Amino acid sequence: MHATLSGDVVRAGERARERFYDSSGYGHPVDGGALELAPVEAAHLLYRGDLSAVEGPDGAAMDFRAFLASAAVSEIAFLVYKDLRDRGFYLSPAREGWSDAPAARDAVDDPAVDFVVYPRGSGPWDDEVAYRVGVVSEREAVPATDLGDLVLAVVDEESALTYLATERRDVSGTSEADLPAGVEGDLLSDRLLLWDPPAALYDEGFYGQPLDEQAGDVIQLSLLEAAYLAGKGVLDVEGGADAVVERGREVEGERFDRRLRVYESLRERGLVPKTGYKFGADFRTYADVASVDDLGHSELLVRVLERDHTFSPRDLALDVRLAHGVRKEMVFALASDGGLGDGAPGIEWLSVTRLTP
Amino acid sequence: MHATLSGDVVRAGERARERFYDSSGYGHPVDGGALELAPVEAAHLLYRGDLSAVEGPDGAAMDFRAFLASAAVSEIAFLVYKDLRDRGFYLSPAREGWSDAPAARDAVDDPAVDFVVYPRGSGPWDDEVAYRVGVVSEREAVPATDLGDLVLAVVDEESALTYLATERRDVSGTSEADLPAGVEGDLLSDRLLLWDPPAALYDEGFYGQPLDEQAGDVIQLSLLEAAYLAGKGVLDVEGGADAVVERGREVEGERFDRRLRVYESLRERGLVPKTGYKFGADFRTYADVASVDDLGHSELLVRVLERDHTFSPRDLALDVRLAHGVRKEMVFALASDGGLGDGAPGIEWLSVTRLTP
Repeated sequence: MHATLSGDVVRAGERARERFYDSSGYGHPVDGGALELAPVEAAHLLYRGDLSAVEGPDGAAMDFRAFLASAAVSEIAFLVYKDLRDRGFYLSPAREGWSDAPAARDAVDDPAVDFVVYPRGSGPWDDEVAYRVGVVSEREAVPATDLGDLVLAVVDEESALTYLATERRDVSGTSEADLPAGVEGDLLSDRLLLWDPPAALYDEGFYGQPLDEQAGDVIQLSLLEAAYLAGKGVLDVEGGADAVVERGREVEGERFDRRLRVYESLRERGLVPKTGYKFGADFRTYADVASVDDLGHSELLVRVLERDHTFSPRDLALDVRLAHGVRKEMVFALASDGGLGDGAPGIEWLSVTRLTP
Repeated sequence: MHATLSGDVVRAGERARERFYDSSGYGHPVDGGALELAPVEAAHLLYRGDLSAVEGPDGAAMDFRAFLASAAVSEIAFLVYKDLRDRGFYLSPAREGWSDAPAARDAVDDPAVDFVVYPRGSGPWDDEVAYRVGVVSEREAVPATDLGDLVLAVVDEESALTYLATERRDVSGTSEADLPAGVEGDLLSDRLLLWDPPAALYDEGFYGQPLDEQAGDVIQLSLLEAAYLAGKGVLDVEGGADAVVERGREVEGERFDRRLRVYESLRERGLVPKTGYKFGADFRTYADVASVDDLGHSELLVRVLERDHTFSPRDLALDVRLAHGVRKEMVFALASDGGLGDGAPGIEWLSVTRLTP
């Protein structure tokens, strides 16, 4: 069967169309009954022995080995294509007109998408898309702006694959507490102590930690909790909320502002954020706190990032693996820089989970 | 009972010595039968109500609240001191002459050590030290050079404590494979393919991964594996080991050299390093590989760092927690910059594990 590489497609005749497209969803048919294949598809057909060679622009015949070593095809795209085929999926490169599914049309305009993958049993002639897949090597930097409605297929240095499903999502809960105003606190170097706080602050609002679990009378507040409560008028501290924010900035620079905005947003959405330090995250969150005596499992791990953050796939893998291991969902809070308060730009929530396609 | 703050000690009389030192290991006795307490010890006695006040240099009496808010005592040191006391330990500040234990004397000269902690049932008048403890806040940078023979007590922003035991250690295993020379490979953009490798390479040496688990004839090598094998004469690739190293540097810069030195060192020590990508690490290692069909559990997760690296406690917590969750030990390979080969400076291995004192 004759196939010729020309620019970024491999052209083959009508028999190829019948055998590869009609029965197995490779390539896309063009006028006159012929078939165009993406190089990665041709590489897979060579690998399977369904094609014996592809003729290069110089007229030389390339077998699988020569084709894979050529610049025509990316080895990592091939590894992902092969893996998805091995798992029983048909898939198309995200190219204009290569798929009939409506959802595939948007994917063409999204440079992060390499493949559209159809549900098992479906193909390019059907309407549905199961996954939009972007292929990256372990060492590539991945901009946060690329993520959301995308499955990242990460190829590690030993060619093993991991799939990470990324989604933009909303976060919300039902936690709320009715708190009195004017609770007094002492600002220490990196936290506050409340010597005589109302019980509801900790017991219902889950603000702070008792200095002593047994005694439970003195409460320690983190600077984030204190800045939030001082801003609400609940906490009365020398210098007001500004003094707490100032101290926070001394301790961790502008990150403090970004974290405080995420803390505020989580509280306003009915979640209780507590430190995620033990999980390497900024926060763990509880969606439905009515009383600390009846505290459920925390559901989310939240890491605060700048909106234009770029991920290293290795760091992503670490976060997602750890969250999975403790039965929590990893959510990145992407916060633009800017001031606090009502006029501040919003926060985008990006969930990343492991996926087995 | 009268106690007076003077410089960095709190002085109290003979009755205090009997009550606090002789029976509970606080402070250290000085000539004339009096007692000197470190401010953190005095804070704990105030907290317990064993002291009612400490007189400041200005003659004013400070209760626990005033003393903790003063500059005399660090709140995070107090939290760690209190926690270790709550756990039933006696401990001393690492100060010249405050402990009779020989091991405490070295600790005095080590600025990373804040407390020496005695085995339960022992005190400053005994010979043994259970832990050398350094206190840090979650947000402090911790130089790698400080670590080893040190328990880091990390106080997170909500005042919860985590203890991390750090040890310099040796790593070794018994893996070895007898490999033929001159195996041919094709260098692709980010890995190599071996089209007809000897079976021992993968089966006994656990080098590379089959392109297809079922077929198993074609082997993919990572650039690290290839650089090592080319350097050993096992792999024959166009341009030799230099071409592989050059490609590695293109892909990940000077980190490649550092990782290659650690890879080589692990192999020379009888360990098989494979990618640790899924665990967010550089390598996972197998100590005793005789055959891939009989592969045990990988024991270590190795992260490669520069020798002068500074850790963020949050990142440390993440690594150690993940390693613990998958029943592996987290080891940091601290490699100085410098060339490859026999003359290159060695690598230091730093193990970090969670500790419950």
